[in-house]
Amino acid sequence: MKVIENITDMRKARKIMPGSVGFVPTMGYLHEGHISLVKRAKDENLTVVVSIFVNPTQFGPKEDFKSYPRDIKRDLAMLEPFTDIVFMPSDKEIYPEKYDTWVEVKGITDYLEGAVRPGHFRGVTTVVNKLFNIVEPTKSYFGQKDAQQVAVIKKMVADLNMNTEVVVCPTMREKDGLAMSSRNTYLNPEQRQGAVVLYRALMLAKELFAKGERDSGVMRREMTELIEKEPLGNIDYISIADAGTLKEIHRIKTLALVSMAVKFGKTRLIDNIMLE
Amino acid sequence: MKVIENITDMRKARKIMPGSVGFVPTMGYLHEGHISLVKRAKDENLTVVVSIFVNPTQFGPKEDFKSYPRDIKRDLAMLEPFTDIVFMPSDKEIYPEKYDTWVEVKGITDYLEGAVRPGHFRGVTTVVNKLFNIVEPTKSYFGQKDAQQVAVIKKMVADLNMNTEVVVCPTMREKDGLAMSSRNTYLNPEQRQGAVVLYRALMLAKELFAKGERDSGVMRREMTELIEKEPLGNIDYISIADAGTLKEIHRIKTLALVSMAVKFGKTRLIDNIMLE
Repeated sequence: MKVIENITDMRKARKIMPGSVGFVPTMGYLHEGHISLVKRAKDENLTVVVSIFVNPTQFGPKEDFKSYPRDIKRDLAMLEPFTDIVFMPSDKEIYPEKYDTWVEVKGITDYLEGAVRPGHFRGVTTVVNKLFNIVEPTKSYFGQKDAQQVAVIKKMVADLNMNTEVVVCPTMREKDGLAMSSRNTYLNPEQRQGAVVLYRALMLAKELFAKGERDSGVMRREMTELIEKEPLGNIDYISIADAGTLKEIHRIKTLALVSMAVKFGKTRLIDNIMLE
Repeated sequence: MKVIENITDMRKARKIMPGSVGFVPTMGYLHEGHISLVKRAKDENLTVVVSIFVNPTQFGPKEDFKSYPRDIKRDLAMLEPFTDIVFMPSDKEIYPEKYDTWVEVKGITDYLEGAVRPGHFRGVTTVVNKLFNIVEPTKSYFGQKDAQQVAVIKKMVADLNMNTEVVVCPTMREKDGLAMSSRNTYLNPEQRQGAVVLYRALMLAKELFAKGERDSGVMRREMTELIEKEPLGNIDYISIADAGTLKEIHRIKTLALVSMAVKFGKTRLIDNIMLE
């Protein structure tokens, strides 16, 4: 496994890669969710490239960019068995002085995370666009946990005719159902215990749907009641949306994305499930 | 020479091109300016791709998208001797329903053409980004006549780490000095005769500069006086700007871009010169 810190060297390395290249962009502080993507990339490609870059432009001014957890040594040890190249550029390498170009997906970024975190997805699409141009992956791997991010990146790739296939992998969960996330590390033991309520609320939605419930108002009310029983959690939003447009729907017809953001102290957790 | 009308076929053709690919994106209605780019592309590459696409998103609602001159038959005949592939997609092929992704260069697009034509450069960078992703050119060729466009595209390519080299070619001129442009065809004989005033004003700036004049105010005033002697021309702007930032400057130090837009009836002509 080779660690590369600048774009020129990454390009050079890319030029001599034979066959398909699988790419997993990450912000580091890896967990089993990331590793599942890397393993999948290794199964499906001759060469695996993982990037570690905590992207400043996708954090709002009041968000946790500075405190975002970092542990490069541990990350590299976790990647070693499955990875050929770790691309680990500095902030200045990605955003040099006078950097001024932005890639923006409109429409589906108006809802959910996009509504609560203005500018977030512009930062995501811009950095992913750059990384795709630098790494030129045959396939790139993203986790379903960030459902809207996946939809936004797929839309960018399709709209801009980018030459990579976006592969979406299932959300990895802790034993009690909590979706794996680097931000789980912020939780104190009580919050960690309470955080399982996101998963429970999703399972409730699934159960209601299986019993024939199609009214999103009823579903949202029951989920809200369940989460409000957890005293440490504060609901940011609970959404039942069209899986294509991400607009809220009143009645579920074919495919719906049930997603939510819940805060535990300053820590904001997200999770989702597809109903079909 | 092969004419390709859809993205899938263009991609297929691209995959089997050996060696370097030179690309000239155009809006058609070609003149010797375009052909000079195509010839340069042929000199420097194994394969030459020219696109013809009148890009709707770079025209403002009150601009000349619908009336923009088109003559495909003539274009193809002009390209034949120097071109391997003409990529000629439909509007729907480039902007399918629900298209929603935009590439935007900030900063340098605030001035000159960007100030007068809001949204123009967002349309240009978006379509050029898409075309670069579809054609994957080794080198792409643009004319210096659209000086700000060249600066904006270079900035996009650098900022987004795109894998193409932008080659800028000199402005081609009619015998009397008028910069070649597809829009010259809009001019009636009197306007066409008067239009040479743009070139004369640029030559005046060059002369003043050669004589030691460095005050942009003086220069602009003399150029304005000259153009105002031409009764059919209406000045849109005359700019003396830093060639890097495109911000107006008071005194010329190293490199300056002298540019202007002048209207003849409804026809808006632009031209520029570099002073160094």
